[in-house]
Amino acid sequence: MSTVLRVGVVGAGAMGADHVRTLTTAVPGVAVTEVYDRDTERATQVAQGAGGSVATSAEDLIGSDQVDAVVIASPDSTHADLAVACIAAGKPALCEKPLAVTAQDALRVVEAEVALGRRLVQVGFMRRYDPGYAHLKATVASGALGEVRVVHNVHRNASSTTSATGPGIVTGSMIHELDTVAWLLDDEVVGIRIESPVRDGLPDPQLATLEMAGGALATVEVFVNAGYGYDVRCEVVGTAGTAALAPAPSVSTRIAGVDGVAVASDFVAHFADAYRIELTAWARAASAGAVDGPTTWDGYRANVVAEAGVAALVGGARQPVLSASRPALYAVGAR
Amino acid sequence: MSTVLRVGVVGAGAMGADHVRTLTTAVPGVAVTEVYDRDTERATQVAQGAGGSVATSAEDLIGSDQVDAVVIASPDSTHADLAVACIAAGKPALCEKPLAVTAQDALRVVEAEVALGRRLVQVGFMRRYDPGYAHLKATVASGALGEVRVVHNVHRNASSTTSATGPGIVTGSMIHELDTVAWLLDDEVVGIRIESPVRDGLPDPQLATLEMAGGALATVEVFVNAGYGYDVRCEVVGTAGTAALAPAPSVSTRIAGVDGVAVASDFVAHFADAYRIELTAWARAASAGAVDGPTTWDGYRANVVAEAGVAALVGGARQPVLSASRPALYAVGAR
Amino acid sequence: MSTVLRVGVVGAGAMGADHVRTLTTAVPGVAVTEVYDRDTERATQVAQGAGGSVATSAEDLIGSDQVDAVVIASPDSTHADLAVACIAAGKPALCEKPLAVTAQDALRVVEAEVALGRRLVQVGFMRRYDPGYAHLKATVASGALGEVRVVHNVHRNASSTTSATGPGIVTGSMIHELDTVAWLLDDEVVGIRIESPVRDGLPDPQLATLEMAGGALATVEVFVNAGYGYDVRCEVVGTAGTAALAPAPSVSTRIAGVDGVAVASDFVAHFADAYRIELTAWARAASAGAVDGPTTWDGYRANVVAEAGVAALVGGARQPVLSASRPALYAVGAR
Amino acid sequence: MSTVLRVGVVGAGAMGADHVRTLTTAVPGVAVTEVYDRDTERATQVAQGAGGSVATSAEDLIGSDQVDAVVIASPDSTHADLAVACIAAGKPALCEKPLAVTAQDALRVVEAEVALGRRLVQVGFMRRYDPGYAHLKATVASGALGEVRVVHNVHRNASSTTSATGPGIVTGSMIHELDTVAWLLDDEVVGIRIESPVRDGLPDPQLATLEMAGGALATVEVFVNAGYGYDVRCEVVGTAGTAALAPAPSVSTRIAGVDGVAVASDFVAHFADAYRIELTAWARAASAGAVDGPTTWDGYRANVVAEAGVAALVGGARQPVLSASRPALYAVGAR
Ligand SMILES: [Mg+2]
Ligand SMILES: [Mg+2]
Ligand SMILES: [Mg+2]
Ligand SMILES: [Mg+2]
Repeated sequence: MSTVLRVGVVGAGAMGADHVRTLTTAVPGVAVTEVYDRDTERATQVAQGAGGSVATSAEDLIGSDQVDAVVIASPDSTHADLAVACIAAGKPALCEKPLAVTAQDALRVVEAEVALGRRLVQVGFMRRYDPGYAHLKATVASGALGEVRVVHNVHRNASSTTSATGPGIVTGSMIHELDTVAWLLDDEVVGIRIESPVRDGLPDPQLATLEMAGGALATVEVFVNAGYGYDVRCEVVGTAGTAALAPAPSVSTRIAGVDGVAVASDFVAHFADAYRIELTAWARAASAGAVDGPTTWDGYRANVVAEAGVAALVGGARQPVLSASRPALYAVGAR
Repeated sequence: MSTVLRVGVVGAGAMGADHVRTLTTAVPGVAVTEVYDRDTERATQVAQGAGGSVATSAEDLIGSDQVDAVVIASPDSTHADLAVACIAAGKPALCEKPLAVTAQDALRVVEAEVALGRRLVQVGFMRRYDPGYAHLKATVASGALGEVRVVHNVHRNASSTTSATGPGIVTGSMIHELDTVAWLLDDEVVGIRIESPVRDGLPDPQLATLEMAGGALATVEVFVNAGYGYDVRCEVVGTAGTAALAPAPSVSTRIAGVDGVAVASDFVAHFADAYRIELTAWARAASAGAVDGPTTWDGYRANVVAEAGVAALVGGARQPVLSASRPALYAVGAR
Repeated sequence: MSTVLRVGVVGAGAMGADHVRTLTTAVPGVAVTEVYDRDTERATQVAQGAGGSVATSAEDLIGSDQVDAVVIASPDSTHADLAVACIAAGKPALCEKPLAVTAQDALRVVEAEVALGRRLVQVGFMRRYDPGYAHLKATVASGALGEVRVVHNVHRNASSTTSATGPGIVTGSMIHELDTVAWLLDDEVVGIRIESPVRDGLPDPQLATLEMAGGALATVEVFVNAGYGYDVRCEVVGTAGTAALAPAPSVSTRIAGVDGVAVASDFVAHFADAYRIELTAWARAASAGAVDGPTTWDGYRANVVAEAGVAALVGGARQPVLSASRPALYAVGAR
Repeated sequence: MSTVLRVGVVGAGAMGADHVRTLTTAVPGVAVTEVYDRDTERATQVAQGAGGSVATSAEDLIGSDQVDAVVIASPDSTHADLAVACIAAGKPALCEKPLAVTAQDALRVVEAEVALGRRLVQVGFMRRYDPGYAHLKATVASGALGEVRVVHNVHRNASSTTSATGPGIVTGSMIHELDTVAWLLDDEVVGIRIESPVRDGLPDPQLATLEMAGGALATVEVFVNAGYGYDVRCEVVGTAGTAALAPAPSVSTRIAGVDGVAVASDFVAHFADAYRIELTAWARAASAGAVDGPTTWDGYRANVVAEAGVAALVGGARQPVLSASRPALYAVGAR
């Protein structure tokens, strides 16, 4: 019989608690054995629901002999150091996006893996596990669309927290598209421009144009105060046809003069399947001591493009994306 | 240059007034020269808007030397006699559905044409001119669906007048499907059953099953108090595939958590194009002294099937459709 | 830490193998410890993939001290006896539909549970776990549609095996709708009529009309040779509006003049989520020694309605549904 | 009875012939009395079909006492001079887009109207008459979307002629969006940027970003070799919701594993209703000696923005839109 993967979770906020819930109710072969959060009450509540115990620090959790693998869902500023600690401990980790707050910090994580000589950290770009995005990537890869020329992306939230900032929208929200487009096209972003129709106050929505190394262009609209709900759209335009995410509501109603479907209210509901599949794939790989999925290099690249995007947003001009060289550990086909 | 077809309109109620509006604003080559209605004020109002005059009686209008062709949009009980009068006067007519209140009366109109030796009256089954239904019929005729086995129909109104009756729903609303299914399949209804989930009070909705001479079956739901709006759906199921009317809203909105399109509130809005195309085709044929489109035989057949339907609704059992023989004047391909 | 539920699976055909695959890759807290199939090679292959062993007989598997709970996915004719054996052994079971080949046999299973005084067998009506159907039921229950008058169902397969028979289509395919409609409306089927446009050869498609105890009517089209793919549709029509399953493709493409989405090719792909959720819910309940979900009474009722349906199909007339009385063990709210 | 508007048509190519067909079969109150084309055979064929005669020159046609109003559908390079001639003759005209090849030439037409003191020329931006666009504009104007922040446009053709050029795509295709966005928002384009993923050979697709005077941004993808068909999409994004053109196919089919609708093959089929409504509205106004709809000022503005767009495409940088001042004759609300 298969042994159970013992998972420690750092961070018991909304994302961490949701991951624990998914791990315990929908992922086979895992047990959440330890939980850490600066807020001990929150950690206790989440740990009890999962049948695990509360760790006294993130470092203790990572070093614990009751923990085989780690989920990092703590505040963004702690991600890079915790990821490096997991690498030092030789334990597979799933680190929520972003991998780091700065590209330089993300590069430290990459370098830690390179020094170790193997990959241990998966970055939480869960969209790659969304059945819609996976189907879209397979359609692109099939060649049915011909050569890809353009990718159109829309990413909307009903409303943002009051602390939202222009740069924060890039690094917190648009970072998903910065990763997704590169992944969909097996290509890299080499230039970026971002502008907003709102010049006074929070620059929201933001419109970005991404230039890919292979020549394709991508548009991205991020609108964190779109009002009506959570909405993610993506259309790939090729020389032979187009393919788009199809909104997949389960029920349509006709009531009071409207033929309509509900729009999801948040990303957790919208991407629930993606999170489940992500955690299942990660746990399966981690049980074999490996990692799969988005790499720290992907996380670093997203940080680099986001930093160029912030500069573009602030300065108004197109920014080139300047990046370190891709280590052999992350060569295409190396996974 | 082409001469103008001078049209007289009998009946200035909602349907008649709408036909006058369409004839004067959207149909080339016609002028509405006379209007008659028992309510003289209403006739005057409609006539003035069209630049025509008010006739003193329906008979005067039909006999007038200012009238080349006639639109019959008066109460149902007058249709058959007025149609016979048009035939006697040798003038092309468009008679709103139903052609008559009873099959026996409808047969009188058929016999008048047979006696004359040519067809002059078109029955107002406007759905045959709806671009969606026309496309659906062309798809069936193309053979792309294989052999047709089933046709599913839905026909809903937001609400009915308080005077609605069970038989009235059959003869006033379901009569459209009784014609449409036969036309779509180039076939005839030979048996019918109708039942309702409501046994006390108005039997609404009604579910009918139609047996076609060629073997296919059709289901029809008519629901005149469906609440949410006006809705007409039709799906043809064949051995190689299916084809269905596609709701064709012009704009979709995403507001307040709903991704939706508006449902038309009534059949006039829903079938505005069908009415325009119907009147244009009728006027073109009438200008050449001919008729085209649904015949009095089609009108008679719809009455015969509706009478069997009423018997089925009241008696609870399947009813055969007993009909006169099709005169050579209405042979398939004779149009 | 939670203990693992040890599951034995009887039947290693397509359905059984798929359940084992789902249990091992997507359901937390379970291990497939034993597999039995008359075809030992098939059993061995499936058992090895799951890390379990091969049982020498279904009876041995049910009685094994390595098996806490049983999945019955063997041929239909064996279901009732195996379900009774599980009840005798006091072990929770998930029995694939149909519960039995005859209503009389299904009643034996019900009576075994009644004699024991508790429920142990869940019947595999997986549609109740499909997110679309679950959302549809919630919409009905919310009252947003007013009072339900009609339910329209469509159930199509691309093609059937050559051994398909008219009665077999009722008991093998339509049985899903016979359960689903009753469940959606919290009501019971009291009358049924089935007819087919095909009178010579296999009666396919079949059109059924179901009368519910509460007055509503339901239509069901089952077409096992629909040619184009697998398709399941359901629309609930109430006095205030309608709700329908929304086809939920993940990607739409525009290629070569067609804006389209793929239709699933089979029910395993279409209902993959439903099977996963069904097995997860069943395993969770079984770990606590209980059962949840569709009961043997539901299975018996589906058999009773199907038998009336077969009589209606063969005899041509509406058949009443004659049933044993509902034991207190299955009272609404008893779950 | 109303008199008939006698229309002369200059240009009997695809567009001119289609306008003549629409005028004679679908527009009330008009007769096509004269047709001119450099290709006399073509002019003869089109004139005969309409019951009109062939003019010996465009100038003769405009001056003819058999012509009350003029449709200009000749090559683009002739538009401005013909429009000026119509103004000089005091005859209402419908001039196909573009109003002129250069902004300077378009301004000559504007100035001719200003000198005359009234408007006589409508520019053929037929999208403003498309029911979808009209509904979209009404939705924006209703305030239901809040304040508009972004407009996304897509404009695709299956394939272009071999003589297509980068600037030609801007002035021939994108010019529709340059007008449409301004009209939808009652605003003006003040800046434009255009780039293409194709740097060698024909720059197609093109991605434009439009800056509106009121702050909103618009994206435009024009792809004249999109392969799969003709497709026009538009979504308006406001602070309270979004509204989009809904593709309005009349029939959907499910055949061979695909649930799909047909994509129109060309703009004539896609916008047939728009052309009919445009011509009907123009003829109605012309019968009263007036013009309605898109003005020469709108035509001039589109030319000005297109010229800035061509400069942006060639030079790679954002271009401001430098324009003459709006004459009082074209003041908002002056129509
Ligand atoms: Mg994530
Ligand atoms: Mg009608
Ligand atoms: Mg099942
Ligand atoms: Mg045009």
